[in-house]
Amino acid sequence: MPSAKIAVIEGDGIGKEVVPEGVKVVEAAARVFGIDLTWDHLDWGCDHHARLGRMMPENGLDRIAGHDAIFLGAIGWPTVSDVESLWTLLMPIRRNFQQYVNLRPVRLFDGVASPLARPGAIDFYIVRENNEGEYSEVGGRMFPDTDQEMVIQDTVLTRFGCDRVMKFAFELARKRKRRLTSATKSNGIIHTMPFWDERFRAVAGDFPDIATEQYHIDILTAHFVRRPSSFDVVVASNLFGDILSDLGPAVTGTIGIAPSANLNPERRFPSMFEPVHGSAPDIAGKNIANPIGQIWSGAMMLEHLGAKDAAGAIVAAIERVLASGENLTPDMGGNASTTALGQAIADAV
Amino acid sequence: MPSAKIAVIEGDGIGKEVVPEGVKVVEAAARVFGIDLTWDHLDWGCDHHARLGRMMPENGLDRIAGHDAIFLGAIGWPTVSDVESLWTLLMPIRRNFQQYVNLRPVRLFDGVASPLARPGAIDFYIVRENNEGEYSEVGGRMFPDTDQEMVIQDTVLTRFGCDRVMKFAFELARKRKRRLTSATKSNGIIHTMPFWDERFRAVAGDFPDIATEQYHIDILTAHFVRRPSSFDVVVASNLFGDILSDLGPAVTGTIGIAPSANLNPERRFPSMFEPVHGSAPDIAGKNIANPIGQIWSGAMMLEHLGAKDAAGAIVAAIERVLASGENLTPDMGGNASTTALGQAIADAV
Ligand SMILES: CC(C)[C@H](C(=O)O)[C@@H](O)C(=O)O
Ligand SMILES: CC(C)[C@H](C(=O)O)[C@@H](O)C(=O)O
Repeated sequence: MPSAKIAVIEGDGIGKEVVPEGVKVVEAAARVFGIDLTWDHLDWGCDHHARLGRMMPENGLDRIAGHDAIFLGAIGWPTVSDVESLWTLLMPIRRNFQQYVNLRPVRLFDGVASPLARPGAIDFYIVRENNEGEYSEVGGRMFPDTDQEMVIQDTVLTRFGCDRVMKFAFELARKRKRRLTSATKSNGIIHTMPFWDERFRAVAGDFPDIATEQYHIDILTAHFVRRPSSFDVVVASNLFGDILSDLGPAVTGTIGIAPSANLNPERRFPSMFEPVHGSAPDIAGKNIANPIGQIWSGAMMLEHLGAKDAAGAIVAAIERVLASGENLTPDMGGNASTTALGQAIADAV
Repeated sequence: MPSAKIAVIEGDGIGKEVVPEGVKVVEAAARVFGIDLTWDHLDWGCDHHARLGRMMPENGLDRIAGHDAIFLGAIGWPTVSDVESLWTLLMPIRRNFQQYVNLRPVRLFDGVASPLARPGAIDFYIVRENNEGEYSEVGGRMFPDTDQEMVIQDTVLTRFGCDRVMKFAFELARKRKRRLTSATKSNGIIHTMPFWDERFRAVAGDFPDIATEQYHIDILTAHFVRRPSSFDVVVASNLFGDILSDLGPAVTGTIGIAPSANLNPERRFPSMFEPVHGSAPDIAGKNIANPIGQIWSGAMMLEHLGAKDAAGAIVAAIERVLASGENLTPDMGGNASTTALGQAIADAV
């Protein structure tokens, strides 16, 4: 019987509500397909910070390094500054474990109302660079508390970093409809984005069978609204991928269902699976958060662990429950609870 | 009789097609309201570059500095790299003339089909910081042509630059529904965006009558799609404003109608008025581009020049022509030409 050891970090806010549903559904699928999962629960996050002054223990990364995967809810709570909470937990995991691909599917399901008048079939992937780019520690502040105060933030792109994520995106497109869109802004941003385009052209040379297109991020957001059906795989820098992966799910009805996989494709380090949404303090504690983003992230985790059938069973269960129109959470126009929707999907598995 | 001297730069691509329509309509309004306009046509752009090796003459800025306003079409053509064409013409004008506010209205007109199922009334302004931020010359490349190749781009925010554009946005909100939304990304971008939030809070202190909200740029794009009716004024950094001001008009049907005003509010330097769309090489030369972005920019120019009635007459004419459903260009579902639509609006004025 195949087995895997999973580090679970519920984190903050609705993370604590959706993770148990994710675990429940993944466990259900694991039982059906005879997979032996060990769940190692870690109480890291802003509560941990309140008690111990840090988001995770000093040796936190070591403690999860030996796991096969990390199953994360959401990080962030008003008691800790965002920069601190995210850059001492989420970002170190993404960076240190070289999870340089953030893979985010965008799909319109039957039963979920899109805000668009004529959405058509929507089914594409965003491949977000997840280790460098606009997210960096480099920069600082000068002349604090004076009228001359200023801050600088460095965006850093490397050939190594661009090429590896682009290669992943081309390979994914090759398994799909062989169309890859690159998000750029080389008409306005001088040093980094023309380089991004250069690397995109260079890597494309190895994939002559993939049709490519490039759009500036501003107009690309317009295309997401006007022709979301036309995308297959979209590759983007860290920030642009972050933006597009909220916009894409919004166009399909709710970001509550959007999952993500922070992948270390070489499997040298554990990969991490988390919903696209955050800790949502405004709805936390009410048992109304949509658990599908977390559950679908669980399916991506099983797929990454080699349990393709179990992963497929979860996605099929999500599809069936959504199509039934029953047990939908408020963000999808229903009035079911987080636990009711989670249970319905577990039952459907 | 009030008078003004305007520098006209058609620029490239569809700029050459929409600017004449803009001039035609603005002239029509000027005649009705007794305003004496002098149009100083400058053949700057990529053709100028082909002939003379530069986008504009060396003393270009001096040549337009004495004008009351600049009426620009679009810049950029495949024969010149984007970085060169934009950073030797558009950007120097925005920067040197301290056009630090890029004001971009977003409005859903009767007669234009929004891609949204239930759009509701949409009528808000984006106030984009236009002089600093993510658009900067600072940065560079190391280890070219090696596997270690990397690039760095500096985003620069100053207290001076943030405060003045935020103040403008608060003042605009005060003339409207007293609601201001700030676009940020302080949970992911360490040095600049937390500073943006700090300055927003500080400036907000002087405007206790304005209700404020702050959203991370990723989720804000989702809100643009899901509740565009709820915005009044949105203030954003250079890049975030760029993105939001394509997305907003896309949600209202077409970015072809979106105008912009690059304002130097102190009027020390001329302000510049240009559509949000670019030179659109794919449809250039076909007489099918939507001239409304340019025409509406002309109305914003008249308003800035103090001719409020003439500006209002143009917007009313645009409204009437759109509502009639006649003379619409292909981007709005019609089959009229650029010139036919421009003429219809001029006649309606
Ligand atoms: C052409 C480009 C540099 C420009 C910008 O990004 O400012 C355009 O997109 C705009 O919105 O005016
Ligand atoms: C919480 C935040 C730092 C994070 C990001 O920007 O990466 C989130 O928005 C995401 O998309 O995973």
